[in-house]
Order: sequence, then C-alpha cells, then structure tokens
Amino acid sequence: MKKVAILGAGMMGSAAAWPLTDNGYKVNLIGTHLDSEIIRSCKKDRFHPRLKRKIPDLVTPFYLEELENALEDVAFIVSGVNSMGIRWIGQTLAPFVKPGDRVIGITKGLEADEEGNMVILPEVLRQELPLKVRERVSIAVVGGPCIAGELAGRRQSCVYFGSREIETAQQLGDVFRTDYYHVWTTNDIAGLETAVALKNAYALGVGIAAGLLEKSGGTDDAGAHMHNLAAALFARSCMEIYRFLEMQGLNTDFAFGLPGAGDLYVTCQGGRSVTLGKLLGAGKTFAEASQVLAGETLEAAMIIQQIGKALPKIFEKGLLKENQVPFMNLLVDAIVHEEPIKFKLDFFFNDEFV
Amino acid sequence: MKKVAILGAGMMGSAAAWPLTDNGYKVNLIGTHLDSEIIRSCKKDRFHPRLKRKIPDLVTPFYLEELENALEDVAFIVSGVNSMGIRWIGQTLAPFVKPGDRVIGITKGLEADEEGNMVILPEVLRQELPLKVRERVSIAVVGGPCIAGELAGRRQSCVYFGSREIETAQQLGDVFRTDYYHVWTTNDIAGLETAVALKNAYALGVGIAAGLLEKSGGTDDAGAHMHNLAAALFARSCMEIYRFLEMQGLNTDFAFGLPGAGDLYVTCQGGRSVTLGKLLGAGKTFAEASQVLAGETLEAAMIIQQIGKALPKIFEKGLLKENQVPFMNLLVDAIVHEEPIKFKLDFFFNDEFV
Repeated sequence: MKKVAILGAGMMGSAAAWPLTDNGYKVNLIGTHLDSEIIRSCKKDRFHPRLKRKIPDLVTPFYLEELENALEDVAFIVSGVNSMGIRWIGQTLAPFVKPGDRVIGITKGLEADEEGNMVILPEVLRQELPLKVRERVSIAVVGGPCIAGELAGRRQSCVYFGSREIETAQQLGDVFRTDYYHVWTTNDIAGLETAVALKNAYALGVGIAAGLLEKSGGTDDAGAHMHNLAAALFARSCMEIYRFLEMQGLNTDFAFGLPGAGDLYVTCQGGRSVTLGKLLGAGKTFAEASQVLAGETLEAAMIIQQIGKALPKIFEKGLLKENQVPFMNLLVDAIVHEEPIKFKLDFFFNDEFV
Repeated sequence: MKKVAILGAGMMGSAAAWPLTDNGYKVNLIGTHLDSEIIRSCKKDRFHPRLKRKIPDLVTPFYLEELENALEDVAFIVSGVNSMGIRWIGQTLAPFVKPGDRVIGITKGLEADEEGNMVILPEVLRQELPLKVRERVSIAVVGGPCIAGELAGRRQSCVYFGSREIETAQQLGDVFRTDYYHVWTTNDIAGLETAVALKNAYALGVGIAAGLLEKSGGTDDAGAHMHNLAAALFARSCMEIYRFLEMQGLNTDFAFGLPGAGDLYVTCQGGRSVTLGKLLGAGKTFAEASQVLAGETLEAAMIIQQIGKALPKIFEKGLLKENQVPFMNLLVDAIVHEEPIKFKLDFFFNDEFV
C-alpha cells in the first residue's frame, strides 16, 4: 500500500488526508512544533480538534520528533504549513529530499525580492533545499476554492494542481481525485499561486465594506446593507488580479476562474482575512486590528506587506500604472502605512479596461 | 429646473430618483398598471412602500393615466420596468417619442430570435417604436452591482452606463453621477447588457448549492457548508459569461468587472434568482418551485428559457461547444426540460481555458 506524508497538521494540511485515504493511500500526518496538541489528540482519540472530525483509519499521526521515521518510503510529501512556515519546511525537508522527490504545497503566499519581483512560495521553499537536489525536486501547488472543513466533510470541491512539470501535477491529480474532489492541472504554477495569494489580500479588501457598514451604524431603517460596495470591490479585485497576472506574462484567465474569482468568493464567506478587513473598515488601524486578532496568522496582511515592498519598483519600471491597481494601493496604505480607509471610488475603474 | 420622467415605479426605477433629485432634477415618477398602490401611497404620504422610504421632495408621483402630462418637457426618460414590460414600454412610449429623445433602461434581460441570436432588451424596446423615429432615439442601459434599496439609501455604488452613442452614456452619466453613485461609460451596450442579463441566470445557478446543502441535511456536525461548490459555480459562471461575450465579439473584460463578477456577486447576496436556485437544489422541479414563488417575476428563469431556445442553434453553428457552457446547459435542463439537478462537475472545467 502506497504511503504519503503530510507535514503540518493544521486544517488544510490535515484535510488533504481525506481524498488520499479514500483513494487507498496510507497517510503519515506529521505535526509541526505548533501542532503538538493536535497530534496528541489524534494519537489518543483519533480526533482532530481543529477539523472537529475523527481522522480516517488510514492516517497515522506523528510528532515532529518522529519526522525521519514518518518520511520513510513515502510516494510524495504534502507541505501543509502556512506561508510563515515555508522556509522552515524547506530547511526541515532539506536533509531528506532526493532527486525526483515530489512536494505539493497548500500554502498561499508571495514574497517580494529586492528588485520588486514577486516570488511564489514554491520557489521560496526550493531556495532552502540543498543546491545539488534543488532543481531536481518537483514542486506542485493546490489552488482554487477549497475550505478545509468542507474537504474533510467530503463536500464537492473544484481545484487546480499546478507544477512546472505538468506530469507531476497530472500524477498527483490522479492520486487525489475523488468523486467529491475534482482536480484540473496546469503548468502555470506561477499564475495559479499568484492568483490564490492575491485573493487573500483582496478578500481583506472586500471585508472592508462590512466594517464601513458597521461604522455607519449598520443597516439603515429600510434595511440597506453595503453589498453594492462589496460587489464593486469584488469586481475590482478580479480586475487587479488580472493586472498582476498580465504584468508577469501569466495566465490571465485565472483571474475569473477557480483561482481568482472562485477562490476569492469562498474566502469572502468568512475567516481571518475578511475579519481583518472589517476591523479596518470599522475604523481601527492595522496595529489595533492586529491586537484584536492576536495569535492569528494574518496571511492577507503579510501578502499586502510584500506587495507594498514591490509596488514602488513595479511603478518605477512602468510595469503597472497606479490607476491599474488603485485597490491594492489602498490596501498597502492601510496595512503598511497605517492610514485610515478612504475610498476614492471615482478613481477605481478608470484604467481603460474597456 | 430640468425634469426627468421615470416610467415604472418598482424598486429600481424609483431608486433612480435619488441621484437625479440630489443633482437638482425634478422627477416625474409614473407607475405602470402594476404600480397603482405604490403611486397611491406616494401621492398620499410621499412614502414608497417597496423601498420603505420617503420619496425625495423633487419627485412628483403620477398614475399611468397621467402619462402624457408627466412626459411633458422631460430631458429624458428612465425605463423602469422589468423584462416582461419591455415591449409594453416601447408601445406605451411610441406615440410620444421624437427624434433625438433619450431613454435609459434599468431592465436586465435577453431575448433569442428565430436564428438563435441573442437580442438585448434595448433593441426589443426599439422594435416597438414607430419606424420613422426608431433609429433616431438614443437608448442607454445601466449595468453593474446596484441593489435598489442601497441606491435609495445613498450607499456607495459603482455602475456602467452603456449606449451605442457614447455621448448619450456620457451625458446621462453626468446627470446621474453623485458622490455615492459612481458611473463609468461604454459604447459596448450589447456587452454590458449581455453580462448583466446572464448574471441573473447564473445567480440562480449559484443558489443551487444552498439547496443541495439543505437537501443533504444542512451543515454537518463539524459545521461544513457547501461554499466550495458555490464558489466553483461562481467561477464557472464568470467563465461562461466570458464565453457568451467572446462568441458575440463583445467586451470580454466585462466578465470579471462590474457587469459580470461584480453584479453576479451582489445578486448572489439574496433575492428571487437565488431563492429559485435554492428550491431547485433542494429537489423541487421548476414547476414546483414556480408555485412556491407564485406572483414573483422570475427574470432569471426567463433568461434561461431564452438561452434554451438559442443554444441548440448556437451549437449547430459551431459558435460555442457544449463543454464551453456546461453550467448553462444544466440550467436549461432544469428550467426548460424540468430535469432534476445533477452536476457532472468533472466536465465543468475542461474547455482548455488555460
């Protein structure tokens, strides 16, 4: 029986165990140093406290200290950490990876380098691998609308697997695909990862509307929400994801497919990114909002910070004009410069898209 | 002081009075034969019972019988009826329109002609005008995410005005634009109207997910919804709006801008289209669901019926392939052929978009 290792026992990493075990794979679920409580519970009661479910029979939980043992003879490795852990996971796997190994990551994020280039997380992970295997490990990512708790509940979900090596995406797609987990493949891993990272940032942005509503006193006597504003921000988000993809020569269709519009839609249904946006819209500074959410990993904010580093260089090089990403500019102002939210909507749809 | 007539005193038609009167225009709000109760209330208490608000001071309500009087000396006419009333409004205005007159419509809809061409409602209205003025009346439409109750509540809203004659769109944009109603313009009226009509159909489709959830017993013990499915359907909707625009040589960018993704997003927040989809997802046939919603105008279903007429001819002519619009095919099967909902999601993202 084939075996797979999942490193990182948070919600999304662990949820990957459902389609894998349903397809007959044994899964070694390895907690990071942050996941000890989860692994303890899984070992004791076979109950995952964050997913609130019994783990499948074919899952074996491991503490990080048991890593070497857990990685033995696995067909491939699922990287189940968040973006803060991406260098750590590269360093942690470095002693073990061999040429030909395959790693599939569920992490959404971006880093900006000194020149203002946006670097996708699989490449960040790759930088931590030993030089002599670095280019001989095949890395894939998952992108598309997939809340972990729904995947573990075997709810219908549609995603893309992306890899520079299309055969890796295809092979892993075949391993994961079930009657509830539908997988398409692409070799545009950069386009896929860029879209799904940006959607986190923009979900924060769409969440601002709910905060502004709250600040204005909530729905009025006639029941008017601020859905019109949220929807305009949603559209603007898709358009700016398109711009960022276009700028890098990546697949712009992702902007309005599963990784862009689809993943943004599901992210807007709730969660930390939206909550952070709501707090900003309600009038809190980023520092104040971060205190409210202390202890949470705010990936959306981290992505905006990275883009905030890159944007001045991107504008300087003429790769984008300011009126092509007015919404991202506002998000950078709010997160990086701690400025209060002030929409200049009249400047939001002036980039001659039509 | 300049005067404008709004014909149709439903929610969206009436809401147009807010930006107009805020800009100093007098508004003659004329009810159709279906709006007598609304006009009675507006005349008596200046209260609009459907918008649940006092009408602005500069609005004068009129019964349909007072039409001729109400149309006197108006700068332009707002067509505020739904798609079922579009021929009626053409016939009603026919005796009064003169060359150079301008009409702006808020109606979303499509008709299919005998050859399978999709005809936008402004052209349907135009067909009802006398031959000698038909081509000399300038027609514009409004598209984009704008719930009427929010517009009347002066909530931030972003929309497009479209007209074959761009100067009409621009002039009317200048008349309507306020610090809460943000208007952009396009001469691609067909692209704008097609996107906003299709989004009604697809909002019904996205609503199916909530019905399937209900049918499955609701959220499970671990709290899993069906947001992943709804989000995949949302993405597929944007992609198919893109396909329909592309097929007709219209502006495909609308698929992921205000008229497509934006308007679809706001429509998915609730309303009849979503409710109808939910009933279908929960297992009702279209006939049964229509009974539950008796008395409501089901524009989404009417649009799907029209597309159902056109699709066989579109496929026959090779303008689209079936795998380019699998979601619309499912909607046609449900609405036109009364088939139960059965997603074949594995066929949903196979059209080589990437």
